Amino acid sequence: MDDRFHVRRTNLRRMMSQTGLESLLITAEKNVSYLTGFTGDSTWLLVTPDSELILSDFRYIIQLEEECPGVELHIRSSKTRMTDALVEKVQERNLKMLGFEGHVLTIEVYQVIAQALSGIELVPVNWEVEKLRAVKDEAEVADIREAVDLAEQGFAYLLEILSPDATEQYLAYELEHAVRKFGGEELSFHPIIAVGDRSALPHYRPGKLRIADSPILLVDWGAQTHSGYKSDLTRTMLTAEFNDPQFEIVYKTVLESQRLAIEKIAPGVSCQEIDSIAREHIKEAGFGDYFDHGLGHGIGLDIHELPRFSQGSDSLLEAGMVVTVEPGIYLPGWGGVRIEDDVLVTEGGCDVLSSVPKDWDNVHVNV
Amino acid sequence: MDDRFHVRRTNLRRMMSQTGLESLLITAEKNVSYLTGFTGDSTWLLVTPDSELILSDFRYIIQLEEECPGVELHIRSSKTRMTDALVEKVQERNLKMLGFEGHVLTIEVYQVIAQALSGIELVPVNWEVEKLRAVKDEAEVADIREAVDLAEQGFAYLLEILSPDATEQYLAYELEHAVRKFGGEELSFHPIIAVGDRSALPHYRPGKLRIADSPILLVDWGAQTHSGYKSDLTRTMLTAEFNDPQFEIVYKTVLESQRLAIEKIAPGVSCQEIDSIAREHIKEAGFGDYFDHGLGHGIGLDIHELPRFSQGSDSLLEAGMVVTVEPGIYLPGWGGVRIEDDVLVTEGGCDVLSSVPKDWDNVHVNV
Repeated sequence: MDDRFHVRRTNLRRMMSQTGLESLLITAEKNVSYLTGFTGDSTWLLVTPDSELILSDFRYIIQLEEECPGVELHIRSSKTRMTDALVEKVQERNLKMLGFEGHVLTIEVYQVIAQALSGIELVPVNWEVEKLRAVKDEAEVADIREAVDLAEQGFAYLLEILSPDATEQYLAYELEHAVRKFGGEELSFHPIIAVGDRSALPHYRPGKLRIADSPILLVDWGAQTHSGYKSDLTRTMLTAEFNDPQFEIVYKTVLESQRLAIEKIAPGVSCQEIDSIAREHIKEAGFGDYFDHGLGHGIGLDIHELPRFSQGSDSLLEAGMVVTVEPGIYLPGWGGVRIEDDVLVTEGGCDVLSSVPKDWDNVHVNV
Repeated sequence: MDDRFHVRRTNLRRMMSQTGLESLLITAEKNVSYLTGFTGDSTWLLVTPDSELILSDFRYIIQLEEECPGVELHIRSSKTRMTDALVEKVQERNLKMLGFEGHVLTIEVYQVIAQALSGIELVPVNWEVEKLRAVKDEAEVADIREAVDLAEQGFAYLLEILSPDATEQYLAYELEHAVRKFGGEELSFHPIIAVGDRSALPHYRPGKLRIADSPILLVDWGAQTHSGYKSDLTRTMLTAEFNDPQFEIVYKTVLESQRLAIEKIAPGVSCQEIDSIAREHIKEAGFGDYFDHGLGHGIGLDIHELPRFSQGSDSLLEAGMVVTVEPGIYLPGWGGVRIEDDVLVTEGGCDVLSSVPKDWDNVHVNV
């Protein structure tokens, strides 16, 4: 039997014990999934030092029994609201204090619970399960490796079907279809496939531009496994000759900034320092004003997890974290270059999980 | 110039005036989109009687200028948090009261805002924009018609590729790919493609079952247009001979319950009454315990919108609402039948937007 979920709930209880929490209500879908193995939605988890209870409804009975063997279930009827089911179970347990996820629960739901449980202390507990999730266990690392592999197979297919008339949108759709054929669930987010100056827009959505419209092609994509784990990669390429010497300067600056940052990734190093290493290199090359986002983020069940590589981060890296490293330089009206890989922090340093070529020698792709 | 969004904000201001709201902060992504035309995320809208301000960040500058011409923008720097930008703008306007979406805002964000705006009254305003969204304007109805058309084209393709060895998952992926080829953005939700007894699970996700594994096939799917509007349809079919007379009884009961409910849809009729009509018919046929969800829901930018057809609903139908009508009978271990169409409420009654055959004569499909 798979006891990962039991181990995770034990870690959660350790945190609860250390912070004096008598109980904790988990309402974030991915946090419930992480702690129980359940992959559906509309389901909450109530944890106390000596019990755990899944609150759900009739639609999920069979799925819960299959995915969460051994965890106590409370299936509310369609006439009982989730909050009423919760209140009943909290009162049954004579709890004096209920921790809840303040970064997830809305004011509306909070007010319903607070009114019904007026004698009970409600304590917001923000981002604590997410902190546990930042450090991956072996099964999670294997799933992320699979997600990287699926993304890379999809990308290889994308390169095969590049043609002058292919639009960004066509390529995005074919990429997702390919990832599914290779055994993935879906792309892990709406991919960015950006031609020409659109590559300077960090949140561009694939549109009608064709490969032939400009030599610059930026692809930011990832795959999701059936278990829900995600990868996140970016490559910037030239699909035709480009007689602008600035491109090579920008590309090599981004690539070197990524190399310098990855080189320093190891347990105990601060996330802010890793961010600074890449940022300083880009600044020294004269492009400091054109890299206006964090250097990277954790990946896992969500596409953006802890830790964050940013100037505001006070986190230290730990073995088992999986992070993206994605410096970029974006010149409005001209274009952008971003290079992104997925990196596992190991006891001895780090392991770059992705292997799509990114050297300057590989920047030209055949169309 | 497209003044739909201006009209919608005027309707919002009327609601604000009627309820004495000096200002309203919109944070729900789809509500911001509905009121401004902006299709990105991470963006808030602050509305007062004589101003409207979009709060966003540098990633969306170009998109905002293209999608929301004429609306005042405040682009925060990456060093300023969204809540800080909001606080600054609320103070600049000398507001005494700030309405906010209590069904959307989290406790964490609320606490940050409440602390920074300690002298200002914060008023939760729940589901008010969603109530406006329930009644569609002409452009929205046209978009939903397109979403229905895309879904039906996708379904016709699905029928063409049905084969004994096709798995639920394969069919789901091909369906999405087809909808995209026909010009849709994506499926409007993860489709349910369920073979055999899995058709009795209202939230089943397509898996490894093959068409040949059972004669029953249930498909619940929809398409989303590039403008973000969605359709939601269900058909239940037989892919082989099925020598169980109960299937015909169940199928015809569901179909007739749907027909009876649709017949009564008109402005002024209560949503509870429509739900009751179908529910009573199913009950009288002896299957009352096996229809344990609401009869339907609004569709639009979200797949589940107001109004709801349920026993707890106190809404009345209005012309311009677009709702699903989806009775079902689910017999555990045997299978389920659900039939779902999208219906526009008109001045004179209603207009069924979807036209995929559903008569008993059409229940057998070729494999």
